Amino acid sequence: MADSKESKIAIIGTGLIGASVGLNLMARKDRKYEVVGVDRSRQNARAAREMKAVDSTVRYLDEAVRDASMIVLAVPSRAAEELLPTLEPYVATGAIITDTCSTKASFMAKAEEVFGNKVSVIGGHPMAGSERSGPSAASVDLFQGAAWALTPSPVASESSVRVVLGLIESAGAVPIYVDPAEHDELVAAVSHVPLLLSVALFKLVHDSACRDDAEQLAGPGFRDMTRLVMGDPEMATDIVTTNRTAILSWLRRYQGELDTIIQALELSDEEAERLAEGIDLPGDGKESAAATADALMEGLFTRARMERFVFDDRLIGRQVPKDGTETPRSSDVIGQMFMGAYLYGRLKEQLNRGEEREREAALRRGAPRNR
Amino acid sequence: MADSKESKIAIIGTGLIGASVGLNLMARKDRKYEVVGVDRSRQNARAAREMKAVDSTVRYLDEAVRDASMIVLAVPSRAAEELLPTLEPYVATGAIITDTCSTKASFMAKAEEVFGNKVSVIGGHPMAGSERSGPSAASVDLFQGAAWALTPSPVASESSVRVVLGLIESAGAVPIYVDPAEHDELVAAVSHVPLLLSVALFKLVHDSACRDDAEQLAGPGFRDMTRLVMGDPEMATDIVTTNRTAILSWLRRYQGELDTIIQALELSDEEAERLAEGIDLPGDGKESAAATADALMEGLFTRARMERFVFDDRLIGRQVPKDGTETPRSSDVIGQMFMGAYLYGRLKEQLNRGEEREREAALRRGAPRNR
Repeated sequence: MADSKESKIAIIGTGLIGASVGLNLMARKDRKYEVVGVDRSRQNARAAREMKAVDSTVRYLDEAVRDASMIVLAVPSRAAEELLPTLEPYVATGAIITDTCSTKASFMAKAEEVFGNKVSVIGGHPMAGSERSGPSAASVDLFQGAAWALTPSPVASESSVRVVLGLIESAGAVPIYVDPAEHDELVAAVSHVPLLLSVALFKLVHDSACRDDAEQLAGPGFRDMTRLVMGDPEMATDIVTTNRTAILSWLRRYQGELDTIIQALELSDEEAERLAEGIDLPGDGKESAAATADALMEGLFTRARMERFVFDDRLIGRQVPKDGTETPRSSDVIGQMFMGAYLYGRLKEQLNRGEEREREAALRRGAPRNR
Repeated sequence: MADSKESKIAIIGTGLIGASVGLNLMARKDRKYEVVGVDRSRQNARAAREMKAVDSTVRYLDEAVRDASMIVLAVPSRAAEELLPTLEPYVATGAIITDTCSTKASFMAKAEEVFGNKVSVIGGHPMAGSERSGPSAASVDLFQGAAWALTPSPVASESSVRVVLGLIESAGAVPIYVDPAEHDELVAAVSHVPLLLSVALFKLVHDSACRDDAEQLAGPGFRDMTRLVMGDPEMATDIVTTNRTAILSWLRRYQGELDTIIQALELSDEEAERLAEGIDLPGDGKESAAATADALMEGLFTRARMERFVFDDRLIGRQVPKDGTETPRSSDVIGQMFMGAYLYGRLKEQLNRGEEREREAALRRGAPRNR
């Protein structure tokens, strides 16, 4: 099998994410590459092979990465960083390295330190996952419609970026170009803080004296709000250790949001108590503080709900045709693996539209104003 | 249709919950009751009728409740309380009143005040819902496997409790007997606080300067954690106004949980900064404060994950056979509506087992100790 292919892609870590990437790479019609997997757990490696998420597996890292055109690091953040110097002696010059880690700044810095411009490092982070882990939870649809953050190193070649775009396109995901530090700041808000809030909520109930009764009454809301607790603890720990500052800043702001809610509730609660005790309240009573606080809460709920529906609608707009309009346009070896033509085309269109807008704006600035 | 049935059930409020209750009542084979719906929105009433969640609808409350053997109040908490005195003149003596409201203490107090022992009031709260509202979102499966809190008034008759158990049994839900005040305390933790946490998270991101970029990167975790924001704002407002004290108490404890996490992150963040600045840390450095904090976080994630899986497993155990082993055993008119025999039987078994354990314990206490 290996001999019949022109190039090799190595997936390091064949868990949930690595095996799902593999399933998408393997599903590509007319592929000219073989997919080789390696995992510190022999059980994970075997499972990935048996489910055809990879063509084959090897036991050692050096075997996996030697002669690989592209290396996909699908392991937790700190493990990925630690692996970089280990891999360096075996990675071919000009290869592509991409990853799927939850944080990007420290990975990109470490990769630059280790590789310089020997290879093209294109950081990646698919915003998808599951409370289940391991290859048995992997799916060819895991990334469908998901955002996939991309942080290409400044020295990465254009063709290497197109290859990674091709991978994302195969998976039906949506690439989002972002600076590594900005990435970490943003995912702290939409991914890392939600994880910590989820853990705190579960702990609150589970460590309370009324745990059994409370859990008996728990419905789908509580289950949704504590689902992230079931994710991989190693990944969770790596997230907080590699993105502390951004997480802390958002967590403090989150406490500010809670304070506002608590204050509104306290206001109306105190007033309710005083009314119950027959204590007269100052003012003419036409609009009590409690009624104002309740109206504030109703406004908060109503506005947030509307905005949340708009947010949902926007997400629906980001489905990508899978294996859609792709046609090979390049002749370099890596380019033959896959082109990412659809997304690359879309990207170019966006850039062109941007330039057009610039030109129009310049024309308008030069034109006389009518009013 | 109405004439051929022996009794009448009135559903007040044919939204998501009311229409789902109706679908379950209508699905009951050999039913001897008709189901009449009423809703302040004529559109909701018509939709419920067209989807056969009710036999018929009426425009006015008095028509709906007159001669009804059972009245199901499926409206937000404050509306339910306000309706009680309006309904009182029309409700037949000996009728059953149940509700589906999110809070129970103030509803039960109001019901007792209005009705005394004229009717049997059995508070109810199905722990199920959806981010969608209205009858179009209703489903016969909405309550399948869900907990359904029950707070019978002390003066409610045994037969009336059995009727409501029958309703819950038809819906495939699991009844949980609980005191009204205790109910409010427990659902504050598993339902009301999660709602507020969800709103605060969405607001945090949506009101931030980087809203668009952050939302572009949002994955399934963020969507799950902000789904409750899409619920009915009137219901949400009623929840915070009828259960302020319990919510406040749990929210403050939640902030305590967050404080612990923030302190652990701060500890390791400060140390990381000092290391970066080349400042020597006290101690022999064998185990740094940061490493301790990281280990604490990893322990937290690992333990919470395991406990969350156990919690999930327990939920699976609570599926109920729908229309399972039911056989009519009573001959009173209301009892003929449905028996709740399966659940009633289970309940009796539990009570018997409890008595048996008591007897055994008494025997053990009296018996000589061997060791």
